[in-house]
Amino acid sequence: MQSLTADNIIVFFLSLGLLLGVARVLGELAQRFHQPAVLGELLAGVILGPTVLGSLAPEAGAFLFPQEGPNAIALNTITTLAVVLFLLVAGMEVDLSIISKQGKVAPRVSISGIVLPFLIGLAAAWIAPQALGRDLDADPLIFSLFLATALSISALPVIAKTLMDLDLYRSDFGMIIVSAAVFDDLVGWIIFAIILGLINSAANHSNHILMTIVLTLAFAGIMLTLGRWLIHRLLPFLQAYTRWPGGVLSFALVLALLGAAFTEWIGIHAIFGSFLVGVAVGDSPHLRERTRVIIDQFVSFFFAPVFFASIGLKVNFLTHFDLTLVVTVLLIACVCKLAGGTLGARWGGMPKRESWAVGFAMNSRGAIEIVLGLLALQAGIIRDRLFVALVIMAIVTSMMSGPAIRLILRLGKKRTLLDAISSKLFTRELQAFSSSMAIHELSAMACEASGLNTGEVEAAVWEREEILPTGIGNGVALPHARIGGISKPIVAVGISGMGIDFDAPDDKLAHVIFLILTPVDAPDTQLEITAELAKLFRGYGMTERVLKIKSYTEFLALVKSSTVEANPA
Amino acid sequence: MQSLTADNIIVFFLSLGLLLGVARVLGELAQRFHQPAVLGELLAGVILGPTVLGSLAPEAGAFLFPQEGPNAIALNTITTLAVVLFLLVAGMEVDLSIISKQGKVAPRVSISGIVLPFLIGLAAAWIAPQALGRDLDADPLIFSLFLATALSISALPVIAKTLMDLDLYRSDFGMIIVSAAVFDDLVGWIIFAIILGLINSAANHSNHILMTIVLTLAFAGIMLTLGRWLIHRLLPFLQAYTRWPGGVLSFALVLALLGAAFTEWIGIHAIFGSFLVGVAVGDSPHLRERTRVIIDQFVSFFFAPVFFASIGLKVNFLTHFDLTLVVTVLLIACVCKLAGGTLGARWGGMPKRESWAVGFAMNSRGAIEIVLGLLALQAGIIRDRLFVALVIMAIVTSMMSGPAIRLILRLGKKRTLLDAISSKLFTRELQAFSSSMAIHELSAMACEASGLNTGEVEAAVWEREEILPTGIGNGVALPHARIGGISKPIVAVGISGMGIDFDAPDDKLAHVIFLILTPVDAPDTQLEITAELAKLFRGYGMTERVLKIKSYTEFLALVKSSTVEANPA
Repeated sequence: MQSLTADNIIVFFLSLGLLLGVARVLGELAQRFHQPAVLGELLAGVILGPTVLGSLAPEAGAFLFPQEGPNAIALNTITTLAVVLFLLVAGMEVDLSIISKQGKVAPRVSISGIVLPFLIGLAAAWIAPQALGRDLDADPLIFSLFLATALSISALPVIAKTLMDLDLYRSDFGMIIVSAAVFDDLVGWIIFAIILGLINSAANHSNHILMTIVLTLAFAGIMLTLGRWLIHRLLPFLQAYTRWPGGVLSFALVLALLGAAFTEWIGIHAIFGSFLVGVAVGDSPHLRERTRVIIDQFVSFFFAPVFFASIGLKVNFLTHFDLTLVVTVLLIACVCKLAGGTLGARWGGMPKRESWAVGFAMNSRGAIEIVLGLLALQAGIIRDRLFVALVIMAIVTSMMSGPAIRLILRLGKKRTLLDAISSKLFTRELQAFSSSMAIHELSAMACEASGLNTGEVEAAVWEREEILPTGIGNGVALPHARIGGISKPIVAVGISGMGIDFDAPDDKLAHVIFLILTPVDAPDTQLEITAELAKLFRGYGMTERVLKIKSYTEFLALVKSSTVEANPA
Repeated sequence: MQSLTADNIIVFFLSLGLLLGVARVLGELAQRFHQPAVLGELLAGVILGPTVLGSLAPEAGAFLFPQEGPNAIALNTITTLAVVLFLLVAGMEVDLSIISKQGKVAPRVSISGIVLPFLIGLAAAWIAPQALGRDLDADPLIFSLFLATALSISALPVIAKTLMDLDLYRSDFGMIIVSAAVFDDLVGWIIFAIILGLINSAANHSNHILMTIVLTLAFAGIMLTLGRWLIHRLLPFLQAYTRWPGGVLSFALVLALLGAAFTEWIGIHAIFGSFLVGVAVGDSPHLRERTRVIIDQFVSFFFAPVFFASIGLKVNFLTHFDLTLVVTVLLIACVCKLAGGTLGARWGGMPKRESWAVGFAMNSRGAIEIVLGLLALQAGIIRDRLFVALVIMAIVTSMMSGPAIRLILRLGKKRTLLDAISSKLFTRELQAFSSSMAIHELSAMACEASGLNTGEVEAAVWEREEILPTGIGNGVALPHARIGGISKPIVAVGISGMGIDFDAPDDKLAHVIFLILTPVDAPDTQLEITAELAKLFRGYGMTERVLKIKSYTEFLALVKSSTVEANPA
C-alpha cells in the first residue's frame, strides 16, 4: 500500500505542528485584543504561506508546504477533514427549536435579513460585475447568485459568541437574532449547495442539475425531519448500551463522515453533509453536555485553527489585495445586511435603537463566509482577488459587530473577577492575624496600585465590616466597600496560611481574603463579584487548592479553570 | 496546490466513515463480551480489508481502499496521525511519580519483568530463529533484539483497564503492577527505538547508528527531566493567560506533533516523540482533568479505532495465519513474562498466590504490542506471518489476564447498580399511593422476574421499613432486604408522578423508589448499591430528570451517563 516515506512524515508533522502552533498563538493574541480568533489563525497562514515565508525564504516555504506530491495530499487530507468537522460543530450549535418559539419579530428579521441582501447582491453583481471582481470568463448567472448568497449569509458561531460576550445571548433580543441567523444560514447554505450543483453539472455538460437540486433539498428535508427524529430516538439507546460518552461521540462522527461522502457524491460539497448531520444531532436534548464539549473543544482547538491557517497557504494576500475591491465589497456587504436586519426588526415592531443593533449583529460574516469563499475559489466561481476581499469583509464585519451593539445599546462593559485582579493586587502570605489588620494590609496594597488614599479606603471597608462580618464560610472572607474616584472594580487578594477570624457562619477561619472595592456609580458590580466568588468557593476544596499555590500565575490559572468548570458553557 | 479531487473526497469520507463505524460497533460488541475493544477494532479491518472484503468482492475493496494514489496517501495520513496521537494518550497515562513511591517489590518486579523475558527471547530467537518466524534473509541480531523486546514489553493501558475492572487499580497490589509496567514500557520503547536506529543506519550504509542512539537517549533523558520540569512550569501560565482548556490542549498537541517530527528525523519513529511528550505533559499535576478527558476521549473514540482497523487493511490475516507459529509465539510469550513477573514478585517478598497474579497482569501485551509489531513489519524486520502471530498473542494475553487474576485471587465479581436493573424490573408509573403499596407492587414485579415468593419478600422488606423508613430525601426511597435463594442483587425501580411518603428527612415525597434485594451471603452488596444511588441522587436535579423520562432505555441512558459524570475517571 502506498504510504508516506520517512521524509514525508518528518515534513508532515513539522508543518502540521508549526501551522497549529502559530495559528493558536496568534489566535490567542487576537482574542487578547478582543478580536475574533479566526483573524489570528488566518494570519498564521499568511505568515507561513506564499505571502510572507514564501517571498522571504521560498526554499523553506517549498520544503514545509510543497505544492505537489504526497505532502501536499497529506495536508489537504487534514484540512478537508478539518473543515468537515468544523461544519459539524457549527451545525451542532444550531438550535432549530428556538425558531418556532419566537413571535413575529424573528421570522420578519430572518426573511428581510436574507431577501434584501440577496436581491441587492444579485442586482449589484448584475449591474456592475467588474467592480465586484467578476472575471470576464465567469458565468454571469452563477457569479451573481454566488455573490448574492455570500452577502446574505450570517455567521451563527460568531453572532452567538458576540452575544455571549455582551451577556445578551439568553435575552429576548439575543434569541431573536440567533433564530433569524439560524434560518438565514440554513437557507443560504442550501442556495449555495444548489449553485455548486449548477457548476458541476455545467462542467460535466450533464443535465443532472435538476437531480442535484432535488437530492440536495431532499437530503436537507429528510435530515431535518426524519433524520432528526431517528437520531433523537437512537441517542438514548447508544447512551444506555455503549460506553459513554464514546458511543455517542463516534456515532456523531461516523454520521458526519458518511453525510460528507453523500453530499460530495450528489455534486455539492462534503461540508453540507456534516453541517446537516450536526444540526440533526445537536438538536436532540439527549445529546449530553459532555459529548458536545469533547467534540467542540477538540475541533475548535485542533482542526479549526489548522483549517483557517491553511487558507493563508493557498492565497497570496499581498499580491491579490485590491483596495478598491475590498472597500466596495465591504460597503455593499454592510449596506445590504444592515438594511435587511434593521428593516426586518422595524417591520417586526422593534424600537429604532434595538433594530439597528439587530442589523449590526446579523452583519457579522465570520468564519462561515471564509469557508464559503474558499469553496467558491476552489470551484472557480471567483478568483484570488475577490476571495481576499471576502475574507477581509468577513473579518471586519465580525470585528465591528460587538463594539457597534455595545455603543448603540449603551451597554457598560461587563466586569468580572478576572478583570479586577492582578499580580500587583495579590499577596501569597498575609502578615495579618486579625480581620482589621488584614483589611489594613489589603487596603494598603490596593491603594498603592491604584493611587487611592489608604486611610479612606480602610475606614470605608472597616465601617462595612463592623455592621456585618464578611466571612462567608469555607475559609473565605469578602471585605468590601463602594469607593469614589475609581472607574472599575479593584479586588485585592491575600492568602493566610494560619487563617484569620472573619466571624464566618461555619466558625472556620478565613484563609483566602478578597478585598473588593467597587465604583459608587456601579451598584451591581459588587454584587456580581461577590456572587462569582461565592460560587467559586462553594466547597472547601477550592480553599484547600488555593492554599497549595505558590504564585499569582498559579492562582490565576486555578481561578480561571475553576470558573469554566463551575459554568460549563 | 495538489489536492484531492471530488472523487477522492467521496472515497475518503466513505472509507473513513465505514472504517470508524464498523470498528466502533465491533469494539463495543467485544466489550459487551468482556473482551478488549481493540479485538473488535482489528476485526473491522480484517472484514473490510483483503482478508474478507478483498477476497469476496475485490472490486469493492479496491474502490474503498485503493493501494495506490491520493486515497492511499490520504488514509495513510490519517492513520499516521492517529497512531501518533494514540501514543500521546498512552504516554499521558504514565505516571512517573508512582515509580519512586513504591518499596522494593515494584523495582524487583520491573527488573525481573523485563530482564527475564528479554534474555529468554534473545536466547530463543538465537537458537531457533526459523521456529519463531525469522526470514532467511533477515539480520539475525536485529531479529533477535526485536523479538526479545516484543516479548518484554507490557501494555500499560490494558493493564490499567484490567486492574480498574477488578477494582484493584488503587490498591498496593495494583500500584506495584502499574509502576513496574511503566518502567518496563519506557525501557522497552527505548530499546526498540535503538533497534529502529540500527536498521535505518544499516539501510543507509551510514555510521550514524551511534548518533541515533545518543540522540534517542538524550531526547528521552531531556524530555523526562528538563522537558517535564519546563512543561510543569508552563502549564499554569497557559491556564492563566489563554482560553481554557483550549490553550493547554493545543499546547500538548503541538508539542506532540513537533516531538513526532523530531524523533522521525533522528531516525527512530514519530510515535516515540509523541509518547515521551505525553509522559512529560501527563505527569504534571497542573494538567487538569478536563483537558485530559477531551484529548483522551477524542483519540480513543476517533483516532485509535481508525488506526487499529487500518491494520487489518494491510495484512491478510487468513493467508498469513500459521498455527504452529502462533502457538509457539504465544507459549514463549506467556512463559517468559509469567516467569519474569511472578519470580520478581516472589523476589520482592510477595506471597505465592499474589505473585502469580502479578505475572498474569504483566503478561498482557494489548494494543502496544500491535503498534510495535506493525512498525517492525513496516521496517522489514518481520514478515506478515510473524506479525499475525504477534497480534494474536497480544490479544490472547490481554484476554486471559483479567479472568486469570480473578481466579487466582478468588475475587467475586463486583456487582453494581447497572448489573442489577433490567427492563423487566422497571415501571414508569407506579399505581401505589402509600409506601406499603409501593413495596407490594415492586416486590411483585421483582418476584415475577426472579421466581421468588412475593409474600416472603414483601414481608422482609416491610419489616425493615417499619424499623427505619428508607426515604433518603431528594425524592428518593430505597426500601431493601437481604433475601435467601438469590445469588445476585435484584433492584426493582418504580417511578411515581404524584409521589409517595417514605418519611424522608427533608419531608419530600418519594418519586423514584428502588427496591433493593441482596443475597444473604453478600453483606456488602446492599451497602454498595445504596451508596451508589445516594451519590447519583445527591441533588434534586436527578429526580426531576428521572420524572421526565419515558422508557426504560431513557432511564438506563440517564443513570449510565450520570454515573460517569459523578465519577470522572
